[in-house]
Amino acid sequence: MIRGKQIYEGKAKKLFETDDPELVIVSYKDDATAFNGQKKGTIEAKGEINNRMSNLLMKMLEEKGIRTHFVRELNSSETLVKKLSIIPLEVIVRNITAGSFSSRFGVEEGIVFDSPTIEFSYKNDALGDPLINSYHVAALKLATSEEIAAVKDTAFRVNSELKSFWAERGVTLVDFKLEFGRLADGTVVLADEISPDTCRLWASATKKKLDKDRFRRDLSGVAEAYREIMSRLERSRS
Amino acid sequence: MIRGKQIYEGKAKKLFETDDPELVIVSYKDDATAFNGQKKGTIEAKGEINNRMSNLLMKMLEEKGIRTHFVRELNSSETLVKKLSIIPLEVIVRNITAGSFSSRFGVEEGIVFDSPTIEFSYKNDALGDPLINSYHVAALKLATSEEIAAVKDTAFRVNSELKSFWAERGVTLVDFKLEFGRLADGTVVLADEISPDTCRLWASATKKKLDKDRFRRDLSGVAEAYREIMSRLERSRS
Repeated sequence: MIRGKQIYEGKAKKLFETDDPELVIVSYKDDATAFNGQKKGTIEAKGEINNRMSNLLMKMLEEKGIRTHFVRELNSSETLVKKLSIIPLEVIVRNITAGSFSSRFGVEEGIVFDSPTIEFSYKNDALGDPLINSYHVAALKLATSEEIAAVKDTAFRVNSELKSFWAERGVTLVDFKLEFGRLADGTVVLADEISPDTCRLWASATKKKLDKDRFRRDLSGVAEAYREIMSRLERSRS
Repeated sequence: MIRGKQIYEGKAKKLFETDDPELVIVSYKDDATAFNGQKKGTIEAKGEINNRMSNLLMKMLEEKGIRTHFVRELNSSETLVKKLSIIPLEVIVRNITAGSFSSRFGVEEGIVFDSPTIEFSYKNDALGDPLINSYHVAALKLATSEEIAAVKDTAFRVNSELKSFWAERGVTLVDFKLEFGRLADGTVVLADEISPDTCRLWASATKKKLDKDRFRRDLSGVAEAYREIMSRLERSRS
């Protein structure tokens, strides 16, 4: 697979063309940002960890019947994925209160919901990624009602699979962010990544944060936490 | 009906006990506030106009089968209503882009939606009335899923009735805010008020704003606009 010209550079990833118009290469960076780019840094080996973790989780989800953009891992930090027209939404599923949910609604972190919740943010840096609901997504024609229904259904199925997967490894899935895109034929599939950058993952026994919150909140041992969560993923079921 | 002790004072209304534990008196004030209380003023005769308009519209809605808290008008600025346990949500229905929708999503005002949209804000001054979706309302136990479904259904029916009502009077209903509460038996009914404080109403021919946006945006003729919209309401169908 030939790596063609760069078509996009985001905060944590670059995208490159390939010689196949339906495929692109994702290249993961060690760069970390938070608070809409206001905080910047790097996390040692993050690119490789996120690449490997995301690929393993996407493969697991594919085996459960959930369609993703994953094609194959090219090397430690690069992966071949299907080219998509991205739906400009961050899809956030929460099992436990934390982060912006807690600050927005004035509730402490760590409260377990009776049922998972879902919310959307409109991916738009200039507007500060505002919260948006299904009615507004449809009104602004960011996605059709059918696509929104598919996104919600898939996001809850992903949650159910990831929650069990991590629970077997002594990790609590608090919340996470997904993105979706359309294939050329219109099929909506899971895109982006699933990693400690996009999930809140707590060691179940100690509640130790094993995710990007250590970076956001200036906690020690950021790179160690990324390595620990990766080693837990690769460990056989506990 | 004896007016008992004051039980609440809000930005634009006071509530008083009565000798019937299931009934309270709403007293409308001329005070106007905007931007979560940061802007303050008074609008001449606003209390009387909002009281009369809200009562006429609630009676119209009752005739269409929509249950409200309205009991009877006591005098020009006071009305007897059913005592409710308020659901702490502002329920906003939009037909046309304007106000916070336009600023939040970076779209100009005046774009007509294919279908009306609905959104909720959590009524909480300390948190700045944050946007909240149905999943979060249920997770925080602010309302049950059945109550949320009833609120959405009623809000869209109210929109449909109000839109036609105003259209017959040469007025475009752009958007509006409703509140709902529970009667002692748990029935969810329409509460609060329906007035130029809570609706965006544009003269259909000229797009002149006949609502509180004149106050929010420092436009001239605020009190005149309130009088004009009231006289249009009382006019027979045009």
